[in-house]
Amino acid sequence: MWNENKFTQELNIQYPIIQAGMAAGTTTPELVAAVSNAGGLGTLGAGYMKAEPMKEAIKKIKELTDKPFGVNLFIPEITDASEEEIEKANELLRPYREELKVTEPEITKPSTEIFEKQMEIIIQEKVPVCSFTFGVPSKEKVHQLKQENIVAIGTATTVKEANINEEHGMDMVVMQGSEAGGHRGTFSGSFDNALIGTMSLVPQAVDHVNIPVIAAGGIMDGRGVLAALTLGAQAVQMGTAFVTALESGAKKQHIDAILNSTEDQSVITSVFSGKPARGIQNEFVTKMTPYEQSLPGYPILNTLTKSIRSEAAKQNRPEWIHLWSGQTSRLSKRQTVGKMISDIVSQVEDIEKNR
Amino acid sequence: MWNENKFTQELNIQYPIIQAGMAAGTTTPELVAAVSNAGGLGTLGAGYMKAEPMKEAIKKIKELTDKPFGVNLFIPEITDASEEEIEKANELLRPYREELKVTEPEITKPSTEIFEKQMEIIIQEKVPVCSFTFGVPSKEKVHQLKQENIVAIGTATTVKEANINEEHGMDMVVMQGSEAGGHRGTFSGSFDNALIGTMSLVPQAVDHVNIPVIAAGGIMDGRGVLAALTLGAQAVQMGTAFVTALESGAKKQHIDAILNSTEDQSVITSVFSGKPARGIQNEFVTKMTPYEQSLPGYPILNTLTKSIRSEAAKQNRPEWIHLWSGQTSRLSKRQTVGKMISDIVSQVEDIEKNR
Repeated sequence: MWNENKFTQELNIQYPIIQAGMAAGTTTPELVAAVSNAGGLGTLGAGYMKAEPMKEAIKKIKELTDKPFGVNLFIPEITDASEEEIEKANELLRPYREELKVTEPEITKPSTEIFEKQMEIIIQEKVPVCSFTFGVPSKEKVHQLKQENIVAIGTATTVKEANINEEHGMDMVVMQGSEAGGHRGTFSGSFDNALIGTMSLVPQAVDHVNIPVIAAGGIMDGRGVLAALTLGAQAVQMGTAFVTALESGAKKQHIDAILNSTEDQSVITSVFSGKPARGIQNEFVTKMTPYEQSLPGYPILNTLTKSIRSEAAKQNRPEWIHLWSGQTSRLSKRQTVGKMISDIVSQVEDIEKNR
Repeated sequence: MWNENKFTQELNIQYPIIQAGMAAGTTTPELVAAVSNAGGLGTLGAGYMKAEPMKEAIKKIKELTDKPFGVNLFIPEITDASEEEIEKANELLRPYREELKVTEPEITKPSTEIFEKQMEIIIQEKVPVCSFTFGVPSKEKVHQLKQENIVAIGTATTVKEANINEEHGMDMVVMQGSEAGGHRGTFSGSFDNALIGTMSLVPQAVDHVNIPVIAAGGIMDGRGVLAALTLGAQAVQMGTAFVTALESGAKKQHIDAILNSTEDQSVITSVFSGKPARGIQNEFVTKMTPYEQSLPGYPILNTLTKSIRSEAAKQNRPEWIHLWSGQTSRLSKRQTVGKMISDIVSQVEDIEKNR
């Protein structure tokens, strides 16, 4: 059977399908629980969450499902930006703030404090799966998770990064192909050279690590799931497909943009957060791209643009919101998680039967 | 059976595997015939060939195989460049020419004359398959091919381009994913937005055209072939995998570079030809990239750099040669075409059996 493998056995779930831990409101406890209840692995995107709201969300998920689920954390980055760089960015952002009537945010120095607290809660709450993006936790932290039987999943965009994950003791690794929507997980080497298509990335990673490989990037239906397993992946991780689910907490403008976009409308841009991410090109991207190289890095720029993006959503200005999307948006549907997963399962089984 | 489908039936061949029509010497009659004799579809890359040498190569292929084969042509582009642009490029290229002792080439205005003669020969010689890159032939030309029972295959990098191919009456279309080595086939819209991964591109094209879709980009072994068919493709086209075949006419330095490269070393660059292409980053790319935007377009820049590249190969200077390669180079092997295809077939059958 296509769904019986190391991944589903180790996690004790029905289907080798992970819902990506997308940050900033998309992964409501309802979405996470719906995915786990449908036989996949739901993931709370806690990258931007403070410890207490994260704890509450975990408790809520536990009320909604008794199946395994995951929490995704961001490895913190201690970026520095000069007063001058920040002032230059504020100058560029001022017209948006004035139009939307939002004030200039204060920049607090990035720290690792929130991450430390998040890790404590993961362990206290015995979250079944903890995944990481933007780097690899220390060997010590990975060891701690293992002692609590928490499965640790990393994110890589090159074979080299997959090797680093394995060396740090991670249990599994998500290989994020260039098709994937949202932030690039690249943490070692150039972002440009790490835009490897899923068709290339998965078999090369499978050949070079001994831990299970999870394919991400461009997968939206049963064809993609079975193709990824054929390449040697033990499971898939899907993001964009879940953003438009009825249980998703994504903003209406974001959902509509995905549903109406074509594969040639998404671009890799760092103008929203300071870190390259794939999203649908809109006015903000077009206008800010000429200044891309001089903007502050992540997470400082993310903080600077945050209120613009959230207020733009409230005032229905999709042209100024980050519209993260992968390259397979023509296959997106507005449907329940249950319908989506049962359609994937039927499609996989149909392909297998008709071969 | 995995290899029984519209594609293999229509072409009357054993396996749904096309060897890409790579230009500039790689696709010797020996390579083309070896692929066709092994049950795939060999293709003469005639993009840069004049009519007479092309005719001779076709005759030679016919001596070496009685199986179907293809010829790939480039849709001509009538690019203009100012004296000033050309002089600026020559200034940048002078140090390479001096070091290699090659002279400045004369630029003849690009014309459609060679293409017209190539088309005449395709029809005279009743070549079984004619594929096209960099655009779509006129409806009249496609009609002519059909009258002679010549199968016409186009190249597309977006769903929109696939639609244009279908509208022009093409019989099949190759969907070139961003993983693919060599020149991008993009002919409508921005090159940057048309870097769609194979995992995304294939199912979206399959859903939007009625002609058979051929998957290209990142496919190197049986896993890739079966994954592409799972996505809905009727066949695959492989380029890089054949460059390192023992029957290939590629330069030794090119073959060695592919065999020793990793997936994160290739980049999209237009510094060799004026048109974006994927190859392994080397000194020429690094040094010329800062001037990329101001260089003349394709095919003018191609003519300007041609003698540098061929002389660099003779003098064993791989740092100045175009080292076209896809993103799955870790899977490349130096082996015969026969071994490569029989390994693909065994691997596909093993995956199917063990499911």
